[in-house]
Amino acid sequence: MNDTSRTGEANQALAPLLRLWAEVDDLGKASSILAWDQETQMPSKGGAARGKLQATLAGLRHEKLVSSEMEDALRAAEEGAVDGTPEHAQVREARRAFDRAARIPGELARALAEAATLSHESWVAARKAADFSLFERDLAHMIGLKREEAGLLARGDITPYDALLDQWEPGMTEAKLVPLFAELRDVLAPIVHGVRECGRTIDESPARGDFPAAAQYAFGRSMAEAIGFDFDAGRLDLAPHPFCSGFAPSDVRLTWRFDAGDFRPALFGILHEAGHGLYEQGLPGAWQRTPIGGAVSLGVHESQSRLWENLVGRSRAFWEWALPRFHAHFPGASGVTLDALLPALHTIQPSLIRVEADQGTYDLHIAIRFELERAIFAGELEARDLPDAWDARYGAFLGVRAPSVADGVLQDIHWSMGGFGYFPTYTLGNLINAQLFTAARAALGDLDAMFARGEFAPLLGWLRENVHAHGARYTATELVERATGRPLSAADFLADRAATAASVYGVTT
Amino acid sequence: MNDTSRTGEANQALAPLLRLWAEVDDLGKASSILAWDQETQMPSKGGAARGKLQATLAGLRHEKLVSSEMEDALRAAEEGAVDGTPEHAQVREARRAFDRAARIPGELARALAEAATLSHESWVAARKAADFSLFERDLAHMIGLKREEAGLLARGDITPYDALLDQWEPGMTEAKLVPLFAELRDVLAPIVHGVRECGRTIDESPARGDFPAAAQYAFGRSMAEAIGFDFDAGRLDLAPHPFCSGFAPSDVRLTWRFDAGDFRPALFGILHEAGHGLYEQGLPGAWQRTPIGGAVSLGVHESQSRLWENLVGRSRAFWEWALPRFHAHFPGASGVTLDALLPALHTIQPSLIRVEADQGTYDLHIAIRFELERAIFAGELEARDLPDAWDARYGAFLGVRAPSVADGVLQDIHWSMGGFGYFPTYTLGNLINAQLFTAARAALGDLDAMFARGEFAPLLGWLRENVHAHGARYTATELVERATGRPLSAADFLADRAATAASVYGVTT
Repeated sequence: MNDTSRTGEANQALAPLLRLWAEVDDLGKASSILAWDQETQMPSKGGAARGKLQATLAGLRHEKLVSSEMEDALRAAEEGAVDGTPEHAQVREARRAFDRAARIPGELARALAEAATLSHESWVAARKAADFSLFERDLAHMIGLKREEAGLLARGDITPYDALLDQWEPGMTEAKLVPLFAELRDVLAPIVHGVRECGRTIDESPARGDFPAAAQYAFGRSMAEAIGFDFDAGRLDLAPHPFCSGFAPSDVRLTWRFDAGDFRPALFGILHEAGHGLYEQGLPGAWQRTPIGGAVSLGVHESQSRLWENLVGRSRAFWEWALPRFHAHFPGASGVTLDALLPALHTIQPSLIRVEADQGTYDLHIAIRFELERAIFAGELEARDLPDAWDARYGAFLGVRAPSVADGVLQDIHWSMGGFGYFPTYTLGNLINAQLFTAARAALGDLDAMFARGEFAPLLGWLRENVHAHGARYTATELVERATGRPLSAADFLADRAATAASVYGVTT
Repeated sequence: MNDTSRTGEANQALAPLLRLWAEVDDLGKASSILAWDQETQMPSKGGAARGKLQATLAGLRHEKLVSSEMEDALRAAEEGAVDGTPEHAQVREARRAFDRAARIPGELARALAEAATLSHESWVAARKAADFSLFERDLAHMIGLKREEAGLLARGDITPYDALLDQWEPGMTEAKLVPLFAELRDVLAPIVHGVRECGRTIDESPARGDFPAAAQYAFGRSMAEAIGFDFDAGRLDLAPHPFCSGFAPSDVRLTWRFDAGDFRPALFGILHEAGHGLYEQGLPGAWQRTPIGGAVSLGVHESQSRLWENLVGRSRAFWEWALPRFHAHFPGASGVTLDALLPALHTIQPSLIRVEADQGTYDLHIAIRFELERAIFAGELEARDLPDAWDARYGAFLGVRAPSVADGVLQDIHWSMGGFGYFPTYTLGNLINAQLFTAARAALGDLDAMFARGEFAPLLGWLRENVHAHGARYTATELVERATGRPLSAADFLADRAATAASVYGVTT
C-alpha cells in the first residue's frame, strides 16, 4: 500500500468526524461573535436575554460534541490515523476536546455560559462603581461552577487547577509553572530592586501630552496596517478593555482604548492586539472548521501579540521608521526625538495595571494571579477574600497598593468570564516570543535594517510559515521546538530583560 | 373542574413544548444577531465563513424544530389546550411553524441560509458598482431555492407564492391581495394624476440645505427618545439601508442613513425604525422565547413604523413641538417656519426610491414588486429578466425610469436575503396604521394637543396595551378587529390620502 492510498483512506475515515466537527466549531464561533457583540455593541439591558442565548448555544455545542455519533466518528477516525500526518493531529485534537467535554454534564456547560454572560455585566457595573460587592455574588457563583468543572476534570496527577490550565494551554500544569514563576521572580525581582535603588528615573514626558482620540485611532490603525493586519478581513473598535477575537481568518476583530494624555496605552495596545490578529488571519484556510484549524495554545497566541508589541514596536529600528509618521499624526509632539522617546518605551517600574505594565514587572502581576487562582482551587480563598488577598500580594510582589478596587481586584475581565487558569499563558507568551524572535533573526538576518525601512513582511512571512500556518497541527511544545530548534526556556526572555535594565538604567544584576 | 386547575393542567401539558421551543427561538435569535452584525459590522471578506455559520445555525434550528421530541410535545400540548387561552395560541403558533418546517428538508433550510448570506454580499457589491451582472448568478440561485421551498409548501388552494406570503403575514394570499392592490391603484392613481395636472409644485427648499451628519444623528436620536424608544435597551447605527432588528425587548437595534442636503430621509427613517423598535421593546416579557413572544405579522409591524413616521411625525401638531428643537440642532435652518415646512413633508410625486417615496405613491412601488414576484413564482420571469421588467413597470405605474440599476432593480435588500412575499406587508401596514390611529384618537381624545406638548406616552400606552403586549397571541386579523372594533379595510388609509391631496395640492378626486 503506498502513501497516497493510505492518505486517501485516512481522509475517508476522517470525513464523518470533520462533518460533525464543522457544526461544533460553528456553534463555538457563534458564541464568540455574540460575546464580541456583548463587549462592544449590546445595549446595557441586553444581558439577561443574552445569557439565556449563550447558554443554549453552549448546551447545543456540548450536546453535539459528546454525541454518540461524534464518539463513533472519532473511533473510526482513530483507527485510520497515521502518526505524523495532519489527519493524526485532527484526531488527537478532537479526542482531547471530546474527552474534556464528556466529563462535563450539559447542564453545567449551559450554566457556565449563562453565568459568564451575567457576571460579566455585573463586573462591568462593579468596576464602574468601584464597588466589589456588586460583583461578589456572581463571582462566588462562577467560582462554584468552575470548582465543580475542575473537580470533574481532575484525575490522577492532574489537579483541579491543572484541568483549568489545560483548557488554555494544553498539557500545562501547576507542577511546571511553580518552578518557572520562581525562576522569573529570582531574576526579575533583583532587576526591579536594582532599578529602584539606582536612583535613575526615566523622563517620560516625550510620551505624554495632548493626544486626541481620533489621531490616536488613525495612527494606531496605520501602524497595525503597516505590520500587515488586513482591515478588509478585520476591524478595530473602542471597548472598555483591549482584546482580539477571530471568527475566521477573514473576520478578525481588535479593540482598543486610550489615554488622551499618553499615547502609549493605545499604540502598544493596538500593536499587541494586531499581533494576535495577524496570527488569526494567518491560520490555515484549508483547515478551517476542523479540530486543528485554530490557534494551538494561548501561550503561542500571546507570543505573537507580545512579539509585535514589544520586540518590534518598542525597538529603536521600528521608531527610526515610525517617528516621522508619529510626528505627522501628532503635530503637537513634533519636537520629540528618537533618543528622548526610546527610554520612555522601556521603563521598569512597579505599577498597578497589568495590561499597561512594563516587561520588567509584567510577569510579577501574573505571578500574583497565579498564586490567587491556585489558592481558590485549593479551597483556600473565597470570592469575598479576594480584595484583601489581592492587596496583600501586590504589596509583597510589587510594593504598590491600588487606591480603589477598580484598579485592584476588579481590573481584569477574566474571572468574570470564568477564565481561571488563563493568566499564566501571558507569561508563557513572553518566553515563547523571545525565543521565536531569536530564531527569526537568525533566519532572516538584519531585522533592524528591515524595520528601519518599514519592512515587516519578512518577519511576518517567517511567523506565517513557522507558526501561523500550522494551526494546531503540532502541540505548542513541538511547534516551538520545530520553529526555534530547541525546547522552550526562559533564557532569551530573561537575557532581554537584563540587557534592557543595563542599557536604560545602567543596572546589572 | 374549575378554571384555575384547567389552566394549571394546560401549563403542565405545555411545559415540554416551551422548553424545546426556547432553544429553537434562541437559534433564530442568534442568526438574527449575526445578520445584524453582517450588515453593520462584519469586514468585507467575512462573508464566506459567515455563510457557513448561518447554514449551520439554520440547519440546527430546523433539526430541533422538526424533531420527534418536538412533535410529541406539540401533540401532548394540543390535547390540553383550551380554546381562547394564551396556551391555545402557543400551540397554534407552534403547530404553524412545525408544519411549515416539516415540509422543508434540513438541507434546503441550510442552503437557503447560506445563499442569503452570500447573495447579500454580492448584492452589496453589485449595487455599489451599479452592475446587475455581479448579482444575477446569486439571485438566480436564490430564486431557484425559493421556488423549491414554495413548491414544497404549496397545496390545495395555497399557491407557491401564497406559501411565501404566509411566512411574513400568516394567512395572506394572492387572491386577497390582487383586489386590494386594484382598489389602491384605482384610488391612488387618480390622485397622483390629479396632482400632476394641477400644476402646483411644493416648495421643498425648507427641507433642504446643509444638514451635517452628526447633527442629524443627534436630532434623530432625540426624536426617537422623545416618542419613547429606550436607548438602554437599544441602539442606532449607520448602515447602507435603514432597518430594525429586535433580539429581545431589552435589545433592539435600529439603523439609519442620511442625505447631507435634506433632513427628511434620516429623520423619517429613524422615526420609522423607532416605530418598529417600540413594538419590539413592548413585546410581552413573560412570553419571551415562546411561540407567541414575537410580533404577530410584518403587516402589524409595519403599521407601527408607519404610524410614528407618518401619522405622528409628519403631523402639524408634532412639528409645533418639534420645530424649536429642529432649529436648535440646525442653526442654519433657523428661518424655517411651520407653514413653509409642512407641505414639504406631504409631497405627492412619483419617484424612484421606495423607502423615500411619499405616502401617495408608496403603494404603487409595492404593487410593482408584487407583480414581479407573482410572475417569478408563476415561472414567467427569471433573474436575468428583472432589470427590464422592473423598468417597464416603473414606466407604467409611476412614469419614471431609473438612470442606473443601483436606483432600479438593485435598490432593495429583500430579494438578496430571499425575502420574496415580504413587500406586500408594507402596504398592509399602511392600512392597519390608519385604522389603528383612528381608533386611538377615538379612545384618547385630542391627540394633536398632546403631540403639540411633546406628549407621546398616551399614544404609546394605547399601542402597548392594544397591540404590543399581545405578541402573537391573536392572529393579525383578530388583533386589528379587537383593537379597532371592525375588520381591516383600506377606507381610513385612502381617506387620509385624499384629504392630504386636497389640503396640500387642492386636488379632489
